[in-house]
Amino acid sequence: MSRSGLVTLLTDFGPGSVYVGQMHGVIHRLSPGARIVDLAHDCPPGVVAAASYILMRSYVHYPKGTVHVAVVDPGVGSSRAILAARADDHTFIAPDNGLLGGVLAGAETSEIRRVENKDLMNDPVSKTFHGRDIFAPVAARLAMGTPLTEVGPEAEAEIARPGPEIDGDGVTGTVLIVDRFGNLITDIPRPALQAIGEPSRIRVRVGAAFIDGMAQTFSDVPKGVALTYVGSGDHLEVAVNGGRASDLLGIKVGDPIRAEKRL
Amino acid sequence: MSRSGLVTLLTDFGPGSVYVGQMHGVIHRLSPGARIVDLAHDCPPGVVAAASYILMRSYVHYPKGTVHVAVVDPGVGSSRAILAARADDHTFIAPDNGLLGGVLAGAETSEIRRVENKDLMNDPVSKTFHGRDIFAPVAARLAMGTPLTEVGPEAEAEIARPGPEIDGDGVTGTVLIVDRFGNLITDIPRPALQAIGEPSRIRVRVGAAFIDGMAQTFSDVPKGVALTYVGSGDHLEVAVNGGRASDLLGIKVGDPIRAEKRL
Amino acid sequence: MSRSGLVTLLTDFGPGSVYVGQMHGVIHRLSPGARIVDLAHDCPPGVVAAASYILMRSYVHYPKGTVHVAVVDPGVGSSRAILAARADDHTFIAPDNGLLGGVLAGAETSEIRRVENKDLMNDPVSKTFHGRDIFAPVAARLAMGTPLTEVGPEAEAEIARPGPEIDGDGVTGTVLIVDRFGNLITDIPRPALQAIGEPSRIRVRVGAAFIDGMAQTFSDVPKGVALTYVGSGDHLEVAVNGGRASDLLGIKVGDPIRAEKRL
Repeated sequence: MSRSGLVTLLTDFGPGSVYVGQMHGVIHRLSPGARIVDLAHDCPPGVVAAASYILMRSYVHYPKGTVHVAVVDPGVGSSRAILAARADDHTFIAPDNGLLGGVLAGAETSEIRRVENKDLMNDPVSKTFHGRDIFAPVAARLAMGTPLTEVGPEAEAEIARPGPEIDGDGVTGTVLIVDRFGNLITDIPRPALQAIGEPSRIRVRVGAAFIDGMAQTFSDVPKGVALTYVGSGDHLEVAVNGGRASDLLGIKVGDPIRAEKRL
Repeated sequence: MSRSGLVTLLTDFGPGSVYVGQMHGVIHRLSPGARIVDLAHDCPPGVVAAASYILMRSYVHYPKGTVHVAVVDPGVGSSRAILAARADDHTFIAPDNGLLGGVLAGAETSEIRRVENKDLMNDPVSKTFHGRDIFAPVAARLAMGTPLTEVGPEAEAEIARPGPEIDGDGVTGTVLIVDRFGNLITDIPRPALQAIGEPSRIRVRVGAAFIDGMAQTFSDVPKGVALTYVGSGDHLEVAVNGGRASDLLGIKVGDPIRAEKRL
Repeated sequence: MSRSGLVTLLTDFGPGSVYVGQMHGVIHRLSPGARIVDLAHDCPPGVVAAASYILMRSYVHYPKGTVHVAVVDPGVGSSRAILAARADDHTFIAPDNGLLGGVLAGAETSEIRRVENKDLMNDPVSKTFHGRDIFAPVAARLAMGTPLTEVGPEAEAEIARPGPEIDGDGVTGTVLIVDRFGNLITDIPRPALQAIGEPSRIRVRVGAAFIDGMAQTFSDVPKGVALTYVGSGDHLEVAVNGGRASDLLGIKVGDPIRAEKRL
């Protein structure tokens, strides 16, 4: 059993999905003592950068020794590889599509391997649901103490990491997540904002709106007014106090957002 | 460890949200043996009265000694207080915004305290996610046996409790929840209906509809017909047998509803 | 305690619903050591055939000895019976509305009983939420080791099983589920397709579209192109690579779909 006994699941399958329920079943069957936690299942479908952000900002809240499974996998059934990594004393399993980029860029990484050992997978492996047939059983076995060396050969530590573009005047990023309150979570991290200048000197452009100066929390501005702030995941966010920024500003996942020096 | 070892979470973060997943992580990290249960996460965003109803009608189904965390918290980051209470041999943590009103009005309350002890919180505490940085770690520690006296000073037991208005002819309330079937759950409790008269003598007005007489379950009326009944939470509900009352009657959360004596 | 100690819940209550949260509470209260797993809660509301499919294709991924509770129950409060069955060394509880048809048609069934023993239920039993007041407490007690014989008298093993219609040229079925990716899961199982002919010789008609030949996974066709395949539940599915079949083909749950020999 892994030291924490915990396995977390991060997917874009949707909350309450039977795909999640079948993954729970496989893990319980192969790892009878494991405790499974749903990290998030409302990741925007196929948006790997959102999953990368969620994983990077969430695993630190879990005990060391936890096994984290992340399946945002538009390439399922194709020749894309699957990676298992040990970093910062946590274990991660994810498709080789950049999902692990955030974690591995920030954590002390000790080992990365390609998941190829069929003895650790379900038999047969379906062509459309590797979450159930590869990710879950491999995670269960790693949680039971199977050494990482057994999953397959060592892999490259170079993992593409999607991210915002920094230029002389500021940074241009993307809206990764629209949460249930209509708040916009972006891929622009705090250091990229600090490089622009003081919070009061930053202007954010999103959709047709300009928002001057950064706030700390919703109630810093009057009801109905838009604000920007560094959110609980240490990235730039946009909200409307008492309202839905996504609706009021007409923004959806994937839309661009820019932070620059206020003139 | 709390006697039941259980911690429940009630939020408006949305099912499958990473906000919920991070709260799970914090509790597992600080309270390794705890079992965490998702009480509800689809509470209408910011609707404190809905959360108050859910908590009041749900905690009784859990074992004594359970710690219940409720985060419907539009004032996060402002100066609103956070309360921890022991009532009916359960422990509750929630913002001081009326959310605990339902529980404390009905339960034998032994102790209410303001949560102020920073030693029990995460460090740092974000300005926008107290669920992760205050509610979850305090709950974890209470579940591990930290005495309630340690969370902070005693607080007033007077907690505003939103509710329906009773007048000479009947009672005017609000739709708190529209469930997945389109059923309407209101803030009007059974006693307020009993004060009006026999079920057959009650008329309910909601939107443009008048519904005469109360039923007991859906199949008491033909398919496609609206009915009123006392629901599983002991409050007035409105449904359409085999249909969606919210769509067919054009009703959403927050809309008024009136029960009165039928002429 | 059941050998696996697991109780799964399958409902159409919606993810994050307090109805699910109250069922968890009841089971934890009556069966302190049980571990409860959410198999699926996004079953299309009232679509018993979808729940039947989900249960039939999912229980096999769980350890033997698990208790599976399935509540898709449009007849709640009416005179419909509730069944408890032991099949393939798993235990199932569901309304007598065909939900168990899929499991019992495929599994070795040793015992079916009507759930009538009020001593195993909550007191009182609400008229609109048998999930909380009958299904959950009976499941908890079966998980704790109460013999199946105690729930009530033996029941007929003849359980109606909804399914597709096979004719000389092919098979006409129904879309059971539209998943979060817009993929269509149907009630047409692999053998019904095999009876038509080679995968390359099968034509599927759904909405206004004809799809010739079957693929194995999404990337077998170019981006934006529709495909049919045998999905992870061994049934016919329809998807669009990188797109939403439900939107692009204009299909919703309950719509007909036909597979036939390609001319």
